[in-house]
Amino acid sequence: MPDGVERRPAGPREERGVLQGRILASARDSFASDGWAGTSIRGVARKAGVDPALVYHYFGSKEQLLDAATEMPPEWAAGIRGDWTMPLDRLGEALVRGTLRNWADERFRPLLLATLQTAAHEPRTREKVGRVFAGVLMAPALERLNADQRPRRAGLAATQLLGIVMMREVWRIEPVASMEVDHLAAAVGPTIQRYLTGDLD
Amino acid sequence: MPDGVERRPAGPREERGVLQGRILASARDSFASDGWAGTSIRGVARKAGVDPALVYHYFGSKEQLLDAATEMPPEWAAGIRGDWTMPLDRLGEALVRGTLRNWADERFRPLLLATLQTAAHEPRTREKVGRVFAGVLMAPALERLNADQRPRRAGLAATQLLGIVMMREVWRIEPVASMEVDHLAAAVGPTIQRYLTGDLD
Repeated sequence: MPDGVERRPAGPREERGVLQGRILASARDSFASDGWAGTSIRGVARKAGVDPALVYHYFGSKEQLLDAATEMPPEWAAGIRGDWTMPLDRLGEALVRGTLRNWADERFRPLLLATLQTAAHEPRTREKVGRVFAGVLMAPALERLNADQRPRRAGLAATQLLGIVMMREVWRIEPVASMEVDHLAAAVGPTIQRYLTGDLD
Repeated sequence: MPDGVERRPAGPREERGVLQGRILASARDSFASDGWAGTSIRGVARKAGVDPALVYHYFGSKEQLLDAATEMPPEWAAGIRGDWTMPLDRLGEALVRGTLRNWADERFRPLLLATLQTAAHEPRTREKVGRVFAGVLMAPALERLNADQRPRRAGLAATQLLGIVMMREVWRIEPVASMEVDHLAAAVGPTIQRYLTGDLD
C-alpha cells in the first residue's frame, strides 16, 4: 500500500466479495480497452463506484490488480483437465467442445475475453498466457499422448483452438461467429485429433 | 483540419514520404499498445519527432490516422490473390506458406502486427479486419471453390491461419514460435486443404 493511503476496514465478507468483483470487472474493461498505460487505479475505482483507497487496500498495486484481473479460476483449469481424461481417440472433439463450453460459461467468458484482449498489447499478460498455456494445456498433453513430438502436437492443437476463439468470440467475424457447436465440433474435431495422435508429415 | 492549426508547406515528395512513414510507424506503436483512448495526435507527433500540425496536415484527424495506420498495401492483397491461383489440390499448403511469407516480409509485418494488436481492443479496427477478411480472403474462396458451404470453408481455414499467426507472430509462444516453415506447411497444410475441399461432417 502506498504512503498516504488510509487503511480502511474491509467490511463483512460478503460485501468485500461484491466490491472486489466490481473492481475486477472495471479493471478488466480498462486493461482490455485502454491497455496498461491507459489504465489508472483512479479510473478503475471511479468506474467501479468505489474509493481509490479501497482498490489499493484490496489489490496493493496496479501490477497486482492486473494479475488478479487476468487470473483464471481453478474451476476453469479443472474443466480442461477433465476434457483431457476422454479416451485418446475422442480427444479432438472433446477439446473443441470444451473450449466452446468455457467461452459460453459466464463465470469464465469475461475473464477469458479480457485476458486475450489485454495480451494483445500488454507483454506482462502475454507472458502469463504463455505460462497458462504451458501449465494448463501443454502439461496434460505431455502426460496423455503416446506419440512423438508431443510439445509440437499440443502447440498445433492450441493454434487451431485459439484461432476459433479469436474469430468467433473475440472478433465475432462471420460465418464462424454463428456456427453451431455441433458443426464446429464435427469440422474442427478431426483437425485437433490429427494434431494430437495422427500423422503430421 | 481543425481550427487554429496552421497549414504548412508539405516539402518535396521524398521528404513527405519519409515523414509520413515516421508518423505512421509512431501511430501504429501507439494504437497497438495504448489503444484508441490512449493515443493522441500530440503523442504520435512527439514520438515521430514532428510537429502535431504536420500530423493533422497529412492525416486530418485521429480517425483517419488510425485508418491509414492499419491500411494494408495493395501488394499484400495481390500476394494473397496469387496464392489462390494455385491448383485446387495444393491450396492448403500454398495458403500456409503464403501467410508465413507475408509475416516474414518487412513491408507487411509491422502493419499486420499493429492491426491485429489494435483489433484486439478497438472495435473500429476489428470491423476493418472483418471487411478485409471478407474482401481479401473470402472473395477468392467463393470464386475458386467448387464445394458446398464455401463461406463456412473459408471461415474455418481463416481460423487455423489466424491461430498460427497469433501464437507464432503476435504472442511468440513456443514451440510454435520456432517451428520451421516446412514443418508448419506439412502439418497445417492438410488441415486447410480439408477445410477448403474435403469432407467436413
